[in-house]
Amino acid sequence: MNYRIVLSSLGSVLCIEAALMIPSLLVSVIYGQDDVYAFLISMSILIAAGFLLHLLKPKDSQMYARDGFATVALSWFFVSLFGALPFLISGVISSPVDAFFESVSGFTTTGATILAEVESLPRGILFWRSFTHWVGGMGVLALMLAVLPSVKASTVHIMVAESPGPNPGKLVPKIGQTVKILYIIYTAMTMAQIIFLLISGMPFYDSVVHALGTAGTGGFSTNNTSIGAYNNVFIEVTITVFMLLFGTNFYLHFQLIRGNLKSYIRDAEFRFYLGTVIISTLLIALDLTGKVFGSFWESLRHSSFQVSSIITTTGYSSADYNLWPSFSKAILVLLTFIGASAGSTAGGIKGIRIVLLIKLLRREVHRIIHPRSVYTVKIGGKTVDDDVLSGVTVFFFAFVFIFAIALLIVSFEGKDMVSNFTAVAASIGNVGPGLGIVGPMGNFSSYSALSKAVLSFCMIAGRLEIFPVLLLLAPTFWKKVNI
Amino acid sequence: MNYRIVLSSLGSVLCIEAALMIPSLLVSVIYGQDDVYAFLISMSILIAAGFLLHLLKPKDSQMYARDGFATVALSWFFVSLFGALPFLISGVISSPVDAFFESVSGFTTTGATILAEVESLPRGILFWRSFTHWVGGMGVLALMLAVLPSVKASTVHIMVAESPGPNPGKLVPKIGQTVKILYIIYTAMTMAQIIFLLISGMPFYDSVVHALGTAGTGGFSTNNTSIGAYNNVFIEVTITVFMLLFGTNFYLHFQLIRGNLKSYIRDAEFRFYLGTVIISTLLIALDLTGKVFGSFWESLRHSSFQVSSIITTTGYSSADYNLWPSFSKAILVLLTFIGASAGSTAGGIKGIRIVLLIKLLRREVHRIIHPRSVYTVKIGGKTVDDDVLSGVTVFFFAFVFIFAIALLIVSFEGKDMVSNFTAVAASIGNVGPGLGIVGPMGNFSSYSALSKAVLSFCMIAGRLEIFPVLLLLAPTFWKKVNI
Repeated sequence: MNYRIVLSSLGSVLCIEAALMIPSLLVSVIYGQDDVYAFLISMSILIAAGFLLHLLKPKDSQMYARDGFATVALSWFFVSLFGALPFLISGVISSPVDAFFESVSGFTTTGATILAEVESLPRGILFWRSFTHWVGGMGVLALMLAVLPSVKASTVHIMVAESPGPNPGKLVPKIGQTVKILYIIYTAMTMAQIIFLLISGMPFYDSVVHALGTAGTGGFSTNNTSIGAYNNVFIEVTITVFMLLFGTNFYLHFQLIRGNLKSYIRDAEFRFYLGTVIISTLLIALDLTGKVFGSFWESLRHSSFQVSSIITTTGYSSADYNLWPSFSKAILVLLTFIGASAGSTAGGIKGIRIVLLIKLLRREVHRIIHPRSVYTVKIGGKTVDDDVLSGVTVFFFAFVFIFAIALLIVSFEGKDMVSNFTAVAASIGNVGPGLGIVGPMGNFSSYSALSKAVLSFCMIAGRLEIFPVLLLLAPTFWKKVNI
Repeated sequence: MNYRIVLSSLGSVLCIEAALMIPSLLVSVIYGQDDVYAFLISMSILIAAGFLLHLLKPKDSQMYARDGFATVALSWFFVSLFGALPFLISGVISSPVDAFFESVSGFTTTGATILAEVESLPRGILFWRSFTHWVGGMGVLALMLAVLPSVKASTVHIMVAESPGPNPGKLVPKIGQTVKILYIIYTAMTMAQIIFLLISGMPFYDSVVHALGTAGTGGFSTNNTSIGAYNNVFIEVTITVFMLLFGTNFYLHFQLIRGNLKSYIRDAEFRFYLGTVIISTLLIALDLTGKVFGSFWESLRHSSFQVSSIITTTGYSSADYNLWPSFSKAILVLLTFIGASAGSTAGGIKGIRIVLLIKLLRREVHRIIHPRSVYTVKIGGKTVDDDVLSGVTVFFFAFVFIFAIALLIVSFEGKDMVSNFTAVAASIGNVGPGLGIVGPMGNFSSYSALSKAVLSFCMIAGRLEIFPVLLLLAPTFWKKVNI
């Protein structure tokens, strides 16, 4: 591996992270709270560390696939580690493991928290917490590619490793340009949401923080009872619509800008995503009517919000769905695994992979009926490459495999099975809240340090789609030192 | 599809089922209980139905793959349906859905029961219940191939569809001969177990019934508290050893007869199976010590029995593991999915598939590190065919997919999530008991008729390894009528 190129890229990333703390610092200054120093000290440490790493100039500037994967995996670990500094230095979180957990949960857009009470916290810290969602949603390395002047073609590996989906595409031929367009769409949509939230009656600070959390499909809130605290249908509908938009492949939004309205409905993944949202919403609304809420409309209000929140892996809540009937909860747990779209800010297995797996299943059945025929799997009229298909099936197993191992370790401390199962599912799926003690009104604080470390690993594994972190565990990965 | 060959084969199967009731009839006669008529009437109905179907002589005796798959799927459904007759006619079970559930559970070697109290039931009925395990373990159609004089090469499709594992092999070139050898090994091992159980101090009738249940890796018992009722270490050790033997690929036992002792340890699946048993047993024993049992040895006694019972998908219990700590329960639930070996009587995903999936995962990681190299997946020094690998990955998804859909439907009636999850897992994995209300001391009687139908479907899907039953749901499967 080319250690020098990996470490000097990491240096750039840490310098960018220091710059990313400026908005939070400004919030602290504006509200005159005492977390200003927490940010100043954190930024100084980041710049010092980033600068030292940057001194390692690569002899060979060619970046191979495994260098790209290593850069991404290590960057996400260290960005989360340094991102925990403001929590620790401000004294908001006293345990380093807890601070790391909260930071990983922020950057990976999971939104699982160890904090039972957030309403009394300094505003700069709460802003930082949600701003990590925004940065992590589109990708912290993508941001580096967008702002650095010397983006080479070989850095495509960084984008492949960080972008969600089986086959990340470029919008335009140049990577730097692609990432810039993505960030422009992302910023514009976030701005639009802030305006709509203000119109709906949400206070300004809350609107900005919740828009950041929606955009990254994160889920950290400024209220202990999340969006339910406002009890406002307009706010809920606004957030529902934007969660669904941020869970859609950004390529489709880009097509819309180019005037191509039909691209949404022509997209197999989007149809699957929208269909799943509609069917799940209706099934849960019917299940809730009479059992939890008096009217069908009240049930529909909360089911539409919750389904959109879970499938986009955001994790906001408008009601305590931990108290809902088993059928509704089973649907929500299933959505935790499915997730939204490739090329969006959402986590989970992603719709396109589920669509491909179902097509593969149908092909296998047809093969038994007509053994001599040749069947190809097509998406949007185009034949899908065998390598992509094989990658999708192996990804599915890898996802379940990591889930199972993590569940075993987390079960070790003896908590109830539903809490353990959904805690791991909500971590690897980057959703945030689960059921039981980690339900929408609960938090992850009572888990042991070992469990929190495992869940943090799951969050990064889920965000980077397993393989970059699995690579770090392979012995052959570390051979051929090039420093 | 060649309906005539499918239906006339089904006729033969039903006639064989009538013959299979003879031992139970004899048990009724010997113990002088009033279930004699239940068997006589059931046998008459079976012979009549079998004879009528047999009148449909096939015009074309060539059996294609899909005819084989259809024969197997339909036979398993109808054998279970007619196998429910003795329960209904004797009045032991009054609801037709419950009787069908109990019969499916028997033939698929699941061992899930709707009966809360079995100790007062007629001995012939209890014998029939466990005898269905024995028949279903090796396969009811395999039995047909073994006893029918005119076994053609084309009937290999029946064996492929009914035998567990990704790549069912023949022991000797001829299928009829292969199945005969398998049944001889199977019978000899069952006899040996009866003798060992008698020596351990189990009464004669109980020994026979429990040996039948072990051989098929079924799990129905004559006691309400299963094997725990004897509180006898010798009995537990005997059953543990035989469960593990019946969960081993019979091809390896065949090699042993041929004098090839080392074939066990050379087999990748057997090493995985034995390793999983040993590690799981130790982990659970350590978890139980001090929490559930006072000493490590007492913990080891019950953990070894329970691990062997669940991984071989038998489902006997020596203690109420529903009361064990979460870590132990999480391991047992995981073993429910894994299952034992291909070519054995056990259910589940099977060790060889897990081994192949892990090898595929490693290949994918190596592909990222060295994109230009070519990696083959090998088992026992031989390269595994790409079609087999693709079949295994699709099978894994299909298993999880059917599991998820079934879980949603079963959740509908609102029972707790742990019971629902393990009820579906224990059904599709052919284990039998789960946790919660379907725990080792519980039963499935409180589930609705819809849930019982879904769980019955899961049992057949699990026993036939998904594809034969999925085929029946494909519209193209029913085209080209040939009657």
